[in-house]
Amino acid sequence: MLKVAVVGASGYTGVELLRILHCHPEVAVTCITSEQSAGKPVADIFPTLRGRYGQILENLEPVRVAEKADFIFTALPHKAAMEVVPTFVKLGRRVVDLSADYRFSDASVYERWYEPHMNPELLSRAVYGLPEVRRAKIKGAKLVGNPGCYPTSITLGLMPLLKQKMIDTTTIIADSKSGVSGAGRGAKVENLYCEVNDGFSAYGVGGVHRHIPEIEQELSLLAGEAVTISFTPHLVPMDRGILSTVYARLAGNTTAADLAKIFADVYEGEPFVRVLPAGSFPSTAHVRGSNFCDIGVAVDSRTGRVIVVSAIDNLVKGAAGQAVQNMNIMCGFPENLGLEGLALFP
Amino acid sequence: MLKVAVVGASGYTGVELLRILHCHPEVAVTCITSEQSAGKPVADIFPTLRGRYGQILENLEPVRVAEKADFIFTALPHKAAMEVVPTFVKLGRRVVDLSADYRFSDASVYERWYEPHMNPELLSRAVYGLPEVRRAKIKGAKLVGNPGCYPTSITLGLMPLLKQKMIDTTTIIADSKSGVSGAGRGAKVENLYCEVNDGFSAYGVGGVHRHIPEIEQELSLLAGEAVTISFTPHLVPMDRGILSTVYARLAGNTTAADLAKIFADVYEGEPFVRVLPAGSFPSTAHVRGSNFCDIGVAVDSRTGRVIVVSAIDNLVKGAAGQAVQNMNIMCGFPENLGLEGLALFP
Amino acid sequence: MLKVAVVGASGYTGVELLRILHCHPEVAVTCITSEQSAGKPVADIFPTLRGRYGQILENLEPVRVAEKADFIFTALPHKAAMEVVPTFVKLGRRVVDLSADYRFSDASVYERWYEPHMNPELLSRAVYGLPEVRRAKIKGAKLVGNPGCYPTSITLGLMPLLKQKMIDTTTIIADSKSGVSGAGRGAKVENLYCEVNDGFSAYGVGGVHRHIPEIEQELSLLAGEAVTISFTPHLVPMDRGILSTVYARLAGNTTAADLAKIFADVYEGEPFVRVLPAGSFPSTAHVRGSNFCDIGVAVDSRTGRVIVVSAIDNLVKGAAGQAVQNMNIMCGFPENLGLEGLALFP
Amino acid sequence: MLKVAVVGASGYTGVELLRILHCHPEVAVTCITSEQSAGKPVADIFPTLRGRYGQILENLEPVRVAEKADFIFTALPHKAAMEVVPTFVKLGRRVVDLSADYRFSDASVYERWYEPHMNPELLSRAVYGLPEVRRAKIKGAKLVGNPGCYPTSITLGLMPLLKQKMIDTTTIIADSKSGVSGAGRGAKVENLYCEVNDGFSAYGVGGVHRHIPEIEQELSLLAGEAVTISFTPHLVPMDRGILSTVYARLAGNTTAADLAKIFADVYEGEPFVRVLPAGSFPSTAHVRGSNFCDIGVAVDSRTGRVIVVSAIDNLVKGAAGQAVQNMNIMCGFPENLGLEGLALFP
Repeated sequence: MLKVAVVGASGYTGVELLRILHCHPEVAVTCITSEQSAGKPVADIFPTLRGRYGQILENLEPVRVAEKADFIFTALPHKAAMEVVPTFVKLGRRVVDLSADYRFSDASVYERWYEPHMNPELLSRAVYGLPEVRRAKIKGAKLVGNPGCYPTSITLGLMPLLKQKMIDTTTIIADSKSGVSGAGRGAKVENLYCEVNDGFSAYGVGGVHRHIPEIEQELSLLAGEAVTISFTPHLVPMDRGILSTVYARLAGNTTAADLAKIFADVYEGEPFVRVLPAGSFPSTAHVRGSNFCDIGVAVDSRTGRVIVVSAIDNLVKGAAGQAVQNMNIMCGFPENLGLEGLALFP
Repeated sequence: MLKVAVVGASGYTGVELLRILHCHPEVAVTCITSEQSAGKPVADIFPTLRGRYGQILENLEPVRVAEKADFIFTALPHKAAMEVVPTFVKLGRRVVDLSADYRFSDASVYERWYEPHMNPELLSRAVYGLPEVRRAKIKGAKLVGNPGCYPTSITLGLMPLLKQKMIDTTTIIADSKSGVSGAGRGAKVENLYCEVNDGFSAYGVGGVHRHIPEIEQELSLLAGEAVTISFTPHLVPMDRGILSTVYARLAGNTTAADLAKIFADVYEGEPFVRVLPAGSFPSTAHVRGSNFCDIGVAVDSRTGRVIVVSAIDNLVKGAAGQAVQNMNIMCGFPENLGLEGLALFP
Repeated sequence: MLKVAVVGASGYTGVELLRILHCHPEVAVTCITSEQSAGKPVADIFPTLRGRYGQILENLEPVRVAEKADFIFTALPHKAAMEVVPTFVKLGRRVVDLSADYRFSDASVYERWYEPHMNPELLSRAVYGLPEVRRAKIKGAKLVGNPGCYPTSITLGLMPLLKQKMIDTTTIIADSKSGVSGAGRGAKVENLYCEVNDGFSAYGVGGVHRHIPEIEQELSLLAGEAVTISFTPHLVPMDRGILSTVYARLAGNTTAADLAKIFADVYEGEPFVRVLPAGSFPSTAHVRGSNFCDIGVAVDSRTGRVIVVSAIDNLVKGAAGQAVQNMNIMCGFPENLGLEGLALFP
Repeated sequence: MLKVAVVGASGYTGVELLRILHCHPEVAVTCITSEQSAGKPVADIFPTLRGRYGQILENLEPVRVAEKADFIFTALPHKAAMEVVPTFVKLGRRVVDLSADYRFSDASVYERWYEPHMNPELLSRAVYGLPEVRRAKIKGAKLVGNPGCYPTSITLGLMPLLKQKMIDTTTIIADSKSGVSGAGRGAKVENLYCEVNDGFSAYGVGGVHRHIPEIEQELSLLAGEAVTISFTPHLVPMDRGILSTVYARLAGNTTAADLAKIFADVYEGEPFVRVLPAGSFPSTAHVRGSNFCDIGVAVDSRTGRVIVVSAIDNLVKGAAGQAVQNMNIMCGFPENLGLEGLALFP
């Protein structure tokens, strides 16, 4: 059994890791930390865990955590992650970090959108953990920067088009919609039930969301050229799920059938990407609680554009599930181990 | 008191008309029809009306309706509307039709997207009822084709940009999101609570939604050139509201401040359009139940695009409220009469 | 025009008062206060008001408020209300207080469930503002203690049974369910969207909720004897609405038809109580945004119990709407003035 | 591997069985039937299954089903179940029937509340499948009548009190609240999103719901005397979950501490019942998607009543999960096999 720590377990990503790991047959969770609630039983914070997780939440003392666990998930805010990850790495622990701190190959990009990086030298050793793009590198990684939720949905939606150079990369617009869990568990008026329920809104309009450089890093790599996109996130009155609607001008004369074939080819054998049949489009409801990314594609022949619609559960394929998928790859487990849970519907 | 009929009152648009008209001081509702439920008290179908509407739902016999009412709202499906509207018009009744049947100036466009038109000669006499665009013509109209919900939100969002020729009209993408009431009150599995709740999905992807020709008709008129757009509607787990996020390439060097001024100028004095301050963006929650269209604008300087976000209540400014606004204009009432209800929040 | 102040306008009850008063033809809102947000435009706090309320939120200086307004609504937390209401009363202003501070005739009851009362001498001059029970007294009142939301729904549900001595008053159980707006607008984790959505829970179980003494005060008065009840509140994932299901053993042989007649008789002529036909039961969806209390009654002949189901909008008939109804009565306006808005459905 | 059939897989209970069985290590689903959708891939009906269930839905031909499977779940409406179950039993297949058809020991009770029974002789061989009450009998059973969702939540809530004779059984009132999936997947206006969302209502008021005789059968058995209850179901705007609030007069002087001990003792070792600590009460959100029944207990010393609050997921512990739990017991698998999935939260 692999001894695993979940660092930062009082948020929604933390509890989702615990939910998934409970059914993983090769894992024992040996350490759970939370700065806010240290000393309390984790099941007091998340009653869903009652009867199955008896652990007390611990303070985050990196050396102690490393003593207790061989594999560490850090589910901390950015900055808090880079304060402790170097210790874990130095002590030889394998780490999947779910913050933004190890997602960028270029420290200056991180610093432009976030803040000064405390250990930029680690960036070259970290692997961006999108298995569909760089499974081989993840296999040998000691430190994985787990992708953001929006970047996962958009990159998987565009990968086949970019690889095959099917689109004019100056025309990409990604209009994304997220459930409220993406905003975290902080006590803010704007995330109260009555503020969110039965309403829909945009935020971060005008190219200012911090996921943009991450998306552009990945798209540029896939395209083999610098790609700049327009990206607008929105808030949907639902707990979980991200749906991205991505628009681009087709480079040549391409039919829906061509596209379907390309998508099917690129994703053949992928355990967690499902390309829908022509004319079908995904719903976040159909991936809720699962690690799938569902993708539908259409051609708008009137305007010469392709429209890709992709859906994930932001807490699973967009966070904790993908983190466990990365762990499976890093540790040589079957990639889908503990991740076969189908969506809860309804 | 103006004697008013609501024809087709068993759907959500019908009951919304009755809700609004109940507080209109110059109106008496003298006739309510429903093919499905004729003979039953309207308050049995919609318990919200109990104690205030004692009427029995009648069969739709056009001549009888015209005898009872001087002003008629037809809230019927398309095709059903054009079967009765000519009679109302011939008998000298003023009509606001909420279907698509009288929204197009060119019958062939209607016929390409819908079906053969039964009285195309009426189209030239009908006025497209978007007051912010053609208030003067509505004033003298006998027959108004009340705009669709998506077209209202997108046209109001783009009008200032098109009038001022600020954008490259070949680059317009409208990504719209609607509450479930837009799908009507038919008993369909896909609109069941458990199918819709806590999920988000796209539909009509690829340029196939019937509101496209209506939107393009209006945008082309405003632009003074033929405009083709990409439009994707989505379904939001909420009762009411449409939010449209519209993207276009800016034609020149335009700042957010320029745009704010242009929007403020164009909509100055408009009773129901609220241009939000720079950096603020609308939520459907803030227009729920009201006749407002809220608009926010941003410039994405990284990509040279403008992003307009507009929000309406699809049943009010997108249907029944706009219909009453048109009635007020046609009848010489103050335009906001009976429409001052603020949004229900939360 | 009556000059009206809304004191404490940054909560959901405050904004609901502003929403309702905007359509009241005899009222001008001349002063709006908020301790949290003084100095900011009220429309910045509640964008629903934009374009209609241009006021800046003021600090709560009682003498200044009294100078600006002849009628004052205090929408403050308990205790904060009794710090300012005496000043308003002393200066001759009429007041409807929406807190618990002036609901009790017996200061010791208040003090047992809340805290020491700062001006118990005012209690005898305050009138409990449930118009269906004591309209005449409200008419002459200078200070009205506006009823709580749960007490309104339960008292209206039981009044006919108690007046007619139809039930064994030792067997009353009230199981109530409330929307989330009842919990206020404070930034608390437990009221976050993701904590509340798609879940249902009880709270205050075991006879500990502070509305119990208020309910028992009113029921005892109606019964002419001391009444003790079991009361359990629950939280429903919805914005607004309270539905109470009330059980009691019938005292004699009473049929559903008997009960229907008694309810109809007692509530005949009441503008805002709707007794539903036999076999029909209310939904909070049918009173959402309106001032109605809908009531349905059944007899369970197997167990000899009556079951009363009553529904209100907690922010309207349970707070702001009832407060305006009280104002109308106190000021001699038609009781339904500004309160004719029908429920927003869907 | 046990070959399993799911008969009647186009409803929410059917798809929930498939979701759970997919992660059950001892089971292979070899046959899936649906009258409505025979011939179509099951993943077309439920896109959540795509990529994991390739099966085509079959017609329900009992002999053929029995040839393909050793263990059969019938997820059919009542009456449809008793048309096919006898064939399965005769052919030696073990069956868990999720309808009401085999829940009653007394055919006349079934016939009073449902309709004539077609094979009453089978009732004596069927075991009511509530493992916490009669695990031993289930072990040897060939045919299990899987309990209803309301009965499961209420019986588990009351079992300790009845076994220990703590309450006056003439005073039991069960006020239950259910998510919308309990109403099934039929295309009915009343279950449309817009009819249900943001509202709360009672139904089946007055002792008329068909789960009453089932509840009373079980409570009477536990109490050792005939028990009659008042039961009112309600509809909550959420997908899943049942919460029951149960009231009864305490027979003697019993403290909350006494009750806590009794509940803890009775449920010690139960894999799926979690008794909450004193002062804590369950939420359906904390059992969503899991097989747990969470129970909280309070004493109302003012009225001498005990209040028990119990929560389950109606589709899991209230249907498909309990059915699999029964299968595990019948087949000698560990009782929790495939059922360890924790609640999806948020």
